[in-house]
Amino acid sequence: MNYTTGTGDLKDWLVAEDGFRPEWLGKGEAVFSLGNGYMGLRSVTEEHYANETRNLFVAGSFNKFADNEVTELPNAADVLWMEFKLNGVRFDLTQGTIHSYRRTLNVKHAELTREVTWESPSGDMYDLVFSRFVSMANVHVIAQRVTITPKQATTLAVTSGINGQMTNSGVQHFLEGDKRLYDGRFMQQLQKTTESGIDFVFHSVHRFKAAETIEPKSIIKMDRRKIFFDYSDIVVPAGETLTIEKYSTVFTSRDRDVEATDLAPYALDVTKDVEAFGYDRLLEEHVNAWDGLVWSHVPIQIESNDMFDQLAIRFAQYHLAVMTPKHDNRMNIGAKGLSGEGYKGHTFWDTEIFILPYYTYTNPKIARSLLEYRYQSLSGAHRKAKENGYEGAMFPWESAWLDDGEVTPVWGAADIVTGEATKIWSGFIEQHITSDIAFATWQYYQVTGDQDFMDQYGYELLIDTAKFWASRLEWNEAAGRYDINEVVGPDEYKEHVDNNAFTNYTAHWNIQKAIEYVELLRSEKPELFERLNEKLDLETAEERFRHVLDLIYLPQVREDGVLPQDDTYLNKQIIDLTKYKNQENVGSMFLDYNLEQVNEIQVSKQADVMILMYLLEDLFTADVKRANWEYYEPKTLHDSSLSLSTHSVLASDLGDQELAYDLFRRASEIDLGPNMKTSDAGIHAASLGGIWQAVVNGFGGVRMTGGKLRISPMLPKAWTSLTFSIEWQGETLDVHATQQHVTITRRVASEKPLQVEVYGEKRVITDTFTSDVLTV
Amino acid sequence: MNYTTGTGDLKDWLVAEDGFRPEWLGKGEAVFSLGNGYMGLRSVTEEHYANETRNLFVAGSFNKFADNEVTELPNAADVLWMEFKLNGVRFDLTQGTIHSYRRTLNVKHAELTREVTWESPSGDMYDLVFSRFVSMANVHVIAQRVTITPKQATTLAVTSGINGQMTNSGVQHFLEGDKRLYDGRFMQQLQKTTESGIDFVFHSVHRFKAAETIEPKSIIKMDRRKIFFDYSDIVVPAGETLTIEKYSTVFTSRDRDVEATDLAPYALDVTKDVEAFGYDRLLEEHVNAWDGLVWSHVPIQIESNDMFDQLAIRFAQYHLAVMTPKHDNRMNIGAKGLSGEGYKGHTFWDTEIFILPYYTYTNPKIARSLLEYRYQSLSGAHRKAKENGYEGAMFPWESAWLDDGEVTPVWGAADIVTGEATKIWSGFIEQHITSDIAFATWQYYQVTGDQDFMDQYGYELLIDTAKFWASRLEWNEAAGRYDINEVVGPDEYKEHVDNNAFTNYTAHWNIQKAIEYVELLRSEKPELFERLNEKLDLETAEERFRHVLDLIYLPQVREDGVLPQDDTYLNKQIIDLTKYKNQENVGSMFLDYNLEQVNEIQVSKQADVMILMYLLEDLFTADVKRANWEYYEPKTLHDSSLSLSTHSVLASDLGDQELAYDLFRRASEIDLGPNMKTSDAGIHAASLGGIWQAVVNGFGGVRMTGGKLRISPMLPKAWTSLTFSIEWQGETLDVHATQQHVTITRRVASEKPLQVEVYGEKRVITDTFTSDVLTV
Repeated sequence: MNYTTGTGDLKDWLVAEDGFRPEWLGKGEAVFSLGNGYMGLRSVTEEHYANETRNLFVAGSFNKFADNEVTELPNAADVLWMEFKLNGVRFDLTQGTIHSYRRTLNVKHAELTREVTWESPSGDMYDLVFSRFVSMANVHVIAQRVTITPKQATTLAVTSGINGQMTNSGVQHFLEGDKRLYDGRFMQQLQKTTESGIDFVFHSVHRFKAAETIEPKSIIKMDRRKIFFDYSDIVVPAGETLTIEKYSTVFTSRDRDVEATDLAPYALDVTKDVEAFGYDRLLEEHVNAWDGLVWSHVPIQIESNDMFDQLAIRFAQYHLAVMTPKHDNRMNIGAKGLSGEGYKGHTFWDTEIFILPYYTYTNPKIARSLLEYRYQSLSGAHRKAKENGYEGAMFPWESAWLDDGEVTPVWGAADIVTGEATKIWSGFIEQHITSDIAFATWQYYQVTGDQDFMDQYGYELLIDTAKFWASRLEWNEAAGRYDINEVVGPDEYKEHVDNNAFTNYTAHWNIQKAIEYVELLRSEKPELFERLNEKLDLETAEERFRHVLDLIYLPQVREDGVLPQDDTYLNKQIIDLTKYKNQENVGSMFLDYNLEQVNEIQVSKQADVMILMYLLEDLFTADVKRANWEYYEPKTLHDSSLSLSTHSVLASDLGDQELAYDLFRRASEIDLGPNMKTSDAGIHAASLGGIWQAVVNGFGGVRMTGGKLRISPMLPKAWTSLTFSIEWQGETLDVHATQQHVTITRRVASEKPLQVEVYGEKRVITDTFTSDVLTV
Repeated sequence: MNYTTGTGDLKDWLVAEDGFRPEWLGKGEAVFSLGNGYMGLRSVTEEHYANETRNLFVAGSFNKFADNEVTELPNAADVLWMEFKLNGVRFDLTQGTIHSYRRTLNVKHAELTREVTWESPSGDMYDLVFSRFVSMANVHVIAQRVTITPKQATTLAVTSGINGQMTNSGVQHFLEGDKRLYDGRFMQQLQKTTESGIDFVFHSVHRFKAAETIEPKSIIKMDRRKIFFDYSDIVVPAGETLTIEKYSTVFTSRDRDVEATDLAPYALDVTKDVEAFGYDRLLEEHVNAWDGLVWSHVPIQIESNDMFDQLAIRFAQYHLAVMTPKHDNRMNIGAKGLSGEGYKGHTFWDTEIFILPYYTYTNPKIARSLLEYRYQSLSGAHRKAKENGYEGAMFPWESAWLDDGEVTPVWGAADIVTGEATKIWSGFIEQHITSDIAFATWQYYQVTGDQDFMDQYGYELLIDTAKFWASRLEWNEAAGRYDINEVVGPDEYKEHVDNNAFTNYTAHWNIQKAIEYVELLRSEKPELFERLNEKLDLETAEERFRHVLDLIYLPQVREDGVLPQDDTYLNKQIIDLTKYKNQENVGSMFLDYNLEQVNEIQVSKQADVMILMYLLEDLFTADVKRANWEYYEPKTLHDSSLSLSTHSVLASDLGDQELAYDLFRRASEIDLGPNMKTSDAGIHAASLGGIWQAVVNGFGGVRMTGGKLRISPMLPKAWTSLTFSIEWQGETLDVHATQQHVTITRRVASEKPLQVEVYGEKRVITDTFTSDVLTV
């Protein structure tokens, strides 16, 4: 993978791959993946290679194959697929000679292009250019264009169509549906998910263009779950160019934007329109849509002595837009976005803690939609609480369709000691997800001031989650306090621990906020109080909240400043972790230890205490934060992609900009770095959200604490300037920071005073404010 | 594909492939496929390539994925899979340089060997030899051996295990089951079919051998439906050889040979024994089993000026043994054996008419088992009759598990005119399967004299099928006769025809035989008569038989000797078929016409009238046969693999040995010929049975007519001699024919007179009889 500067308008917008390596297919498939939040398309090549992974996912289309599996996003039909024969020889980059090769993701245009000069094994030469995009303007459309320019007269054959044989690693989620050709050109294939009963409708159509009008010889074929054309005897003179366009559309019966009662004929009509419209005009609409949604709306400029930094944040924004189902509040973001089978399209705390801040601070409408998803999935959270003997909303660790409840799989990787599959405990006891959602709800409200959201959903979410925690507490008679035992905290290398600091502190925070809001509702919003009282029995709940609040055990900072991660962590064995800290691939410790053994060592997968100190930062002094950094970071393997970006922000907070920069780079390299095997199962959604946080919350110094805004940028040495915008309480603030100065501008000046803390000083900004950069 | 003479013991026993061509993977996978009747294993390579088809089928393990699909043999877990990294470079024949390559199927030993000298892209050189077999001695065992001899010091990594992600063209037939490692070495994976609930148990274990004892670094991994080892850091000095053996076992809950109540531990124990036994000793047992079952039992020698002929018949015998589930009379032979997904493992008339004669004449025990399958599947035949408003046994056109009844899929290839899928009518109206089974039952009885079979099953089958026909007839008031309308005959290019000659004649024959046997039972086997009378109401049935017999319309030979294939064939359009007769791939006519149009043209897919004249040969004179050959053969595209071998036998009968030889060669080339795309979906089971018929019934002149044996060999010019054996009425006859003489020997001389018709003369043979060759 490399990063091209590009020129002119495309400077710092291109990610490119300069060589074709069959063993690295997965990397390109994931990092170049296309999408529009409605669907995500892995960037496989048109022609097939061994060990490729062809994926097309439609957000929210979950299906469960069997009772002993969990629901997942099904891998829909492959519409990209095209096979070429050039003078009788299959186009196959593992054969013959590649004279030049470049595959480029143009992040600005969200278009993928592959340019190849290929010499076939029989010595013929061809220039081929493959382009494609998944439209952001009409989210149902996938457009492809292939141009072939032979250096000698060539007879071409193409096989291309719709292949519904795709599976999720062997799991088939679809019933075979009808296949049909319309008007002699428009291929249609229907599918229906086996359990959730969602109808999928696929169409594809081809268009051939050449110097002279051509009518290729064609024959329509059907096979099992397949409909395709065999085109043959297409004669291309030497030096002339043949263009093949393929337009495909994808619709499902869950689409809210389709009002037609009969989906298939409607989709066929759309396909006809799309094909008539043509690649260039579709692309123009698509590029404009991207510009409006992302690039003009949330421009971030980094002047760095390494162009990679600018590209890294754009790459993150690109994938955040590709993965986010902004069109439908019944859907959320998967841990791998829509770019791979990893984590089955499920939503984790990754959304609330790592991704949501991007939207909360830049596009609150999308943030709200994602939080509404949680509100709508309360029934599953109630069910999970009840099944575990608790009250209120116990959110599932992994979440899929609204009423699914808990969908975390139960069995994972091999235990190298016992030879059995390892049990995944997260779905049972990784419970902090509930306070994570409460925290994100509150953060959204504080940053946006969206009172309508709070009235409709926010108060209820905060109180219902607190009810869970209040019921979850365990009375410790000996100590005269409430414990939270037998959990997994953010650090998943410690299972079945008691009083995980992150869990206890955020649970405490959650109950505290609930008390605050119950009070507020009673005094200021009596009607809403009544409504929620009926639903949640606020009075009983409040009594319980007030009873437990001060009895919740909050692990205390030791004399050396270290906050115990849980009751036993600090007593566990300390070993030399050098080998694992220097690992090439994450998880290397499991080549030597099983999880049970790792559990007994002072080693962490990811930030745990540290992320607590990031989220509830005003509870801890700078000295305590530093002491904990120094204790825990050397024991943290960053085996979770959620770890590095958090650490980068914290390093910024601690004033170590160079360490923060190093961590930002390492976080960016999770997907964009030289290790070509990291992204096979898909891009790392939370890490990409974390990159934005490292830039804006870290170097940009943006933070909301206790409802107050702070902006205290501190750039790393490599950067000349950082320019970004955030939304705060309904207005846009533009921030421009250099090594010397920071300028904060209210895009629309206002008499209403805006208080911002800048480098420790409270400032009131009316239009533009400039400050020297100061170390806090 | 080429055919190597081999030397010494292996002369004319080897089929080899001399080059690696990624686009021809399917051919080698099918024609080199291994098996033992219990399971069939497509011969994919250890390492993966694009467009490969990895298949492992266990006979009789049918499963139905969904209500709108038909049951099929599920593609079981892939145990062959091994991926190698040699000095960090993936072993991949599409990369680097192949200095020598040969893959050889040793038909005698049923062992497949691939020898490669490969230069990796980084310039390292390796000799690799891959061997494997699927044991005929212990049918649950698959053994592999890989030797790697690097020309330079090499560090090797291997990934290998059990992959349960396999599907049938995207259809997943299994629930994921437990995975577990035992004793740190034995991998176990369980699967269960989704609908039929059959448990599968897989085990694999590796063994490494080198000059010095090695303990490769290994780590056990589990993924979705996968368990495998990653071995790494295996150091092989230059010029030394590393051997890796992999032993796998396959068991299912349908296995009759397993008495253990708990299958998985039993299978694990077997696997331990197998691994301890080792490759060489397992191979020796396996080779002996093949010799006993096939090569010593049914030796056929052809002295020809082209060694291909000898190999072709051995290749046919090889695959017949691989595909036939001789171990279990609840199972039958699939149209592609166990070598591919084509026809879903279903049984057609291919068994009775094309394959069964091989077993009837050489291994009656197996023939009987296959007929018992039909007897046991009577319940489905009764259901089909009832559902269609008929009586008796209406056998399914396609048959799977015993009580499945009809399993023919309803929709097939694309109709090029309407753009819709074409309806497959065979399951509804291709009804001659019922008389085919009756005929084969009778043929078995006549050839073997197996009275026990007749008493237990045969009479009942013949009468129950006749009951179907008697109820199927339609009274034609105008003509005063019974018609059989709206059928598909053997020629599937004519659908919905009335009075197909093959159908009417064989139905008439079936009823006639039933009358004969009802009479016989009444007079000679009163007890059996009573038993069957209760079951089948013989008295009413017989009355109906006698009433209809002479009123069944039998199309009559025209003045020019031509027998109308049906009521309308001879009135249809005659077109120039040259283009299609010279086609490279079968079915080329459908590039220009749809089935509806083909239906209106005098063109046949395969033998129809001709096969009638082969089966009921004493009803037609030689002149009539010749007239029909001359009329129909030019109109027959041989688009079915069932066609050429029948025509070869008929050409022999007509005395045109050279034409017969040409047709025998063409039939042999269906799988073994130069067209590399013919066998992708699997080998052609019926055609392979037909090759034996072309040799023994054709050139060997062996025929049973009206219960009498005829042996009148007539060799083609290319052959010096033909030596074969047949079983007749419980004894073995050895036949040796040259261009001049034929010698027939009773292997065990007997006083009991044996009547054989030789070249038109009735002979009584006591021990050995020799005759000059005469033209009949």
